Amino acid sequence: MTESTSSHPPRDKPDATSKNSRLTATASSTASELSDLKISLHRSLRQFPDFPSPGILFEDILPIFADPTLHQSLVRALELHVTSCYGPDQKLDIIVGLEARGFLFGPSLALNLGAGFVPVRKPGKLPGPTETAGFKKEYGEDFFQVQKDAIKPGQRVVIVDDIIATGRFHFLILVLGQNTNIFLGGSAAAAGSLVKKLGGTLIGYVFILELDFLKGRAKLDSPVYTLLSSQEDGPPKS
Amino acid sequence: MTESTSSHPPRDKPDATSKNSRLTATASSTASELSDLKISLHRSLRQFPDFPSPGILFEDILPIFADPTLHQSLVRALELHVTSCYGPDQKLDIIVGLEARGFLFGPSLALNLGAGFVPVRKPGKLPGPTETAGFKKEYGEDFFQVQKDAIKPGQRVVIVDDIIATGRFHFLILVLGQNTNIFLGGSAAAAGSLVKKLGGTLIGYVFILELDFLKGRAKLDSPVYTLLSSQEDGPPKS
Repeated sequence: MTESTSSHPPRDKPDATSKNSRLTATASSTASELSDLKISLHRSLRQFPDFPSPGILFEDILPIFADPTLHQSLVRALELHVTSCYGPDQKLDIIVGLEARGFLFGPSLALNLGAGFVPVRKPGKLPGPTETAGFKKEYGEDFFQVQKDAIKPGQRVVIVDDIIATGRFHFLILVLGQNTNIFLGGSAAAAGSLVKKLGGTLIGYVFILELDFLKGRAKLDSPVYTLLSSQEDGPPKS
Repeated sequence: MTESTSSHPPRDKPDATSKNSRLTATASSTASELSDLKISLHRSLRQFPDFPSPGILFEDILPIFADPTLHQSLVRALELHVTSCYGPDQKLDIIVGLEARGFLFGPSLALNLGAGFVPVRKPGKLPGPTETAGFKKEYGEDFFQVQKDAIKPGQRVVIVDDIIATGRFHFLILVLGQNTNIFLGGSAAAAGSLVKKLGGTLIGYVFILELDFLKGRAKLDSPVYTLLSSQEDGPPKS
């Protein structure tokens, strides 16, 4: 029977109420799963005082990678965030990871998302034509490079690293052929400038950890997501 | 009916012939899948002459990571090798990855195997008590560190890195407390010495690429597997 009656909606017209209910239920389920994952991940962090220099409380994320269950939880949690914010209708093309800790989970996240992975590296490590961005560190200057053909114009890109910490403004000097532009930002901002220079669409930044009191996210001009806050909302396990 | 007759083997006694046939069929299927994966991976490599220095033909593995299908093929191929050699009856506990390119695929491989991932890093990057191994490079000396509690005595460990290249013997100076031991080897051997110092059982080394003519594997004292040979069995795609 192909007729529809007034008491039944046409088959190709979805029931908006029930669809919205399902979406709400899905979002609630995702939020609940993400919340559980974050609790177990946060508990696994270790803190080391005065590393790498006096007065700094270092957050060690390596216990996550040592345990396959926590490791899987980390990648799953980041995937849940990215797909809930940017997908599945807005597919990501590229995950950019910063050397070296961004390499620890950027490729796994890219695999789970079906996206490509592109490394941003220290100078002299990448063969072929590259773009270079420099930024000032506490002592001296450092540089990042990316292969010029690694990102195509219009590709949707998310940049990942382990931690957004510094709130100090640094001068970032973008070295591109004969042009030298000056930006304010740190290493993540340098990676962001490289993505834009190649024509990529920078969707946002994703970090595992954020030292909230340092207000590092205020220095980035694209959306920033941090999986775990720390050293503000209570210490991790003792 | 619980009786067995002379015409039927007891139910708890496997039919050795058919079991062996199945194992042979499985091994053949694995070998066939691995062979197909290796062909597509080898084709994706790019070569850059005179990088990082004149006379060196650099093999670029990054196109693999830029393509989700190739990336998945890489991790699957390494997983097939490891499980066919060391599992499933002999489970691996830890994948050790060398900074920085070993971080690109070591964690994904560890996830697929259900093993932990432990990074070996340059000095000053790892918090807490560490072991250190030094080795001579072409110009000067370099060091690797691992967290002391990252590997438990008796844990079964495989070390991964992107390439085994150098055939040159270098003096490796293992700096451990008051003892200084001298070994012959390169960066992979330094990582191997760290694994053994922590009491781990070093099962073997796994690399993506090997420059066969440099005979680097002769300098390692545990089994070495390389997924792709290069610059001996014909050039990758032009």
